[in-house]
Amino acid sequence: MTGIFTSQSSTSQASLLTYRQQFPGLANKAYFNYGGQGPLPEVALEAIQQSYVQIQQLGPFSNQSNTWIVNEAELTRRAIAAELGTTSQTITLTENVSAGCNIALWGINWRSGDHLLLSDCEHPGIIAAVQELQRRFGIEVSICPFQETLNVGDPVAVLEQHLRPTTRLVVLSHILWNTGQVLPLAAITAVCHRYPSHQPIQVLVDAAQSVGVLPLQLDQLQADFYAFTGHKWWCGPEGLGGLYIRPEALANLHPTFIGWRGITADSHGQPTGWKPNGQRYELATSAYPLYAGVRAAISLHHQWGTAEARYQRLQTLSYALWQQLADLLGVVCLRSTPPEAGLVSFQLPGKSHNQLVSFLESNGFMLRVILNPDCVRACIHYLTLESEIDQLVEAIRQFMQRSGA
Amino acid sequence: MTGIFTSQSSTSQASLLTYRQQFPGLANKAYFNYGGQGPLPEVALEAIQQSYVQIQQLGPFSNQSNTWIVNEAELTRRAIAAELGTTSQTITLTENVSAGCNIALWGINWRSGDHLLLSDCEHPGIIAAVQELQRRFGIEVSICPFQETLNVGDPVAVLEQHLRPTTRLVVLSHILWNTGQVLPLAAITAVCHRYPSHQPIQVLVDAAQSVGVLPLQLDQLQADFYAFTGHKWWCGPEGLGGLYIRPEALANLHPTFIGWRGITADSHGQPTGWKPNGQRYELATSAYPLYAGVRAAISLHHQWGTAEARYQRLQTLSYALWQQLADLLGVVCLRSTPPEAGLVSFQLPGKSHNQLVSFLESNGFMLRVILNPDCVRACIHYLTLESEIDQLVEAIRQFMQRSGA
Repeated sequence: MTGIFTSQSSTSQASLLTYRQQFPGLANKAYFNYGGQGPLPEVALEAIQQSYVQIQQLGPFSNQSNTWIVNEAELTRRAIAAELGTTSQTITLTENVSAGCNIALWGINWRSGDHLLLSDCEHPGIIAAVQELQRRFGIEVSICPFQETLNVGDPVAVLEQHLRPTTRLVVLSHILWNTGQVLPLAAITAVCHRYPSHQPIQVLVDAAQSVGVLPLQLDQLQADFYAFTGHKWWCGPEGLGGLYIRPEALANLHPTFIGWRGITADSHGQPTGWKPNGQRYELATSAYPLYAGVRAAISLHHQWGTAEARYQRLQTLSYALWQQLADLLGVVCLRSTPPEAGLVSFQLPGKSHNQLVSFLESNGFMLRVILNPDCVRACIHYLTLESEIDQLVEAIRQFMQRSGA
Repeated sequence: MTGIFTSQSSTSQASLLTYRQQFPGLANKAYFNYGGQGPLPEVALEAIQQSYVQIQQLGPFSNQSNTWIVNEAELTRRAIAAELGTTSQTITLTENVSAGCNIALWGINWRSGDHLLLSDCEHPGIIAAVQELQRRFGIEVSICPFQETLNVGDPVAVLEQHLRPTTRLVVLSHILWNTGQVLPLAAITAVCHRYPSHQPIQVLVDAAQSVGVLPLQLDQLQADFYAFTGHKWWCGPEGLGGLYIRPEALANLHPTFIGWRGITADSHGQPTGWKPNGQRYELATSAYPLYAGVRAAISLHHQWGTAEARYQRLQTLSYALWQQLADLLGVVCLRSTPPEAGLVSFQLPGKSHNQLVSFLESNGFMLRVILNPDCVRACIHYLTLESEIDQLVEAIRQFMQRSGA
């Protein structure tokens, strides 16, 4: 732990304060909503701005600008791939996590009776998409109870108990957005891929809360589909994310929403097939200036430290918040053991979580309510200050006093 | 015609030059690719920039910023709806035209044997999407030959001949992107809606080339689905478009790509259904700062003149280019009659269109090649200068001489 506490010395605290000045969103508040959206660093905004200027300079539509944009997209896939431990060929640029999940969900050739296993800790949008698949294709959907394994039990064993010979897809999050549990993804994909089902079981991962938090080597984790966004823990601009597709899964995943970016065409402009890589799922014109924005944000994080160093600091800070909250009378942390990542969820039994979040926001602390399970979520990034944690705990204490704890 | 030529007087020419200074993309070139992407006005870029600042100030993720973003989205749907002669309830915000088309294409409950009639002048991405529908659902697809009606014949009669009792959807563009023909949409939707088919025939319109060009009253045109973008003739930012859905068509169009923006949920965060309006097809986090950008662009056009005045000027200028090109030896305009809108497509028999476009681009004239039919496309907006047209014709003349006309 020596190394960790070194980074909390007054020297490095001072340099973190300087470093944080590059994030305008952090200036006027204590920010605990990184899992909703990360603060955009100034360099990212400047890169976006510069891209707008460049596109207008070259075109906006011309051979030259089109070449420039194609290159920007590939540079972005490469920068993302480098973070994820994979190659740019496996990366599809998308608008957001949901788009990536939908590409996977709708690209499978579902047959009536196929089974989809859905974790019980997924985002409502994904649940609704799965329900629509069920309605359209007559697939069977069952729920995998991960929530009860937060403090005791083995999620891998629970998962295995819920697989069936007809299971074709498992849908889960790498880090559960509500409880903050980190699922053992490599073990889960191994179980799924070796399960004696009628057809290979694939794994779709909602990576909204893991990308930018965990050091990742996707080529080792063996998830089939890993949908992420740049605008949360990477602190990139909203409206740009991606989908990793395992090379073995590409051939059988059919494009659904289809546009000119995903296809090949002959000399008469007639479609001839799909791009050979993840680009086949890309649609059409996007907010291209964002590409430089997310790359700038990713680069900036590397200036602070490696993915491992950032994750270590984030864990240390999460532990500090979790411990202080656990010691606070009237507050119940969902976890009975220290958090594994940056999400710290807690409850105030008998109090209104909405009122707490409103009280905190009016005092400059940004957190959010989660409805299932009913709780408040604080997100800790490596950017978080120790003093922000202390102040947050104090503000919660004040709320408890005011509301008659 | 007197009124039109008045706008070409030296006085208004001078004021147009001043007005054009608000479009940085027009400064260093003669621009004829409005149908690819319009130049972004400075006010739009500033509005985007200001939105980024605002979001970081309020959040980026907080109750306050979320309220602000919801309001931004609604203001944008309203601004768009006002341009299109409809209400914000009929508008779905999308990333681009293709997304809008795909929402319609995949939302119909296709049955094997259903017939889809596709115009022969559609963008390759739409053709590929229709081919994938055909493969997945066993629908029948046939082609409606509009291209041959550019100079003679009646597209409505041709369309009617190609409808079948099993036809469920007609897919066409309001303004054909290759030849520039304006299809008589009200007559077409009337024919489709009264056709004695087994199920009502719906009409999906690719409006990439018509929005921002034609004065529109969608509530009168009666298209079922009208997919458009802000980044072409409206000169908004790339990555933001929309889909109009006729109120009568909403209930039976199922959401396909699904995310949190389109659904309703209960107090436990469980999905309960769809938003009651076009928002049900909206997905998840987008590049929200673009919303202010497209509104700023739309407002600016109104400063210059009404939709009718802009369309009139654009037609006058297109006529001028078409006439000069028609008079040029070795150039064949696709149209034998004056253009109805801003697209002027032409051929140089025996010459390479790619070489022409490269030659022109290297001399500061931005045009594009179209592959079907093989031609070069020049786009004229109300922003175009008479002098740009003269210079373009002269540049084409030079190319002809150099390449041995």
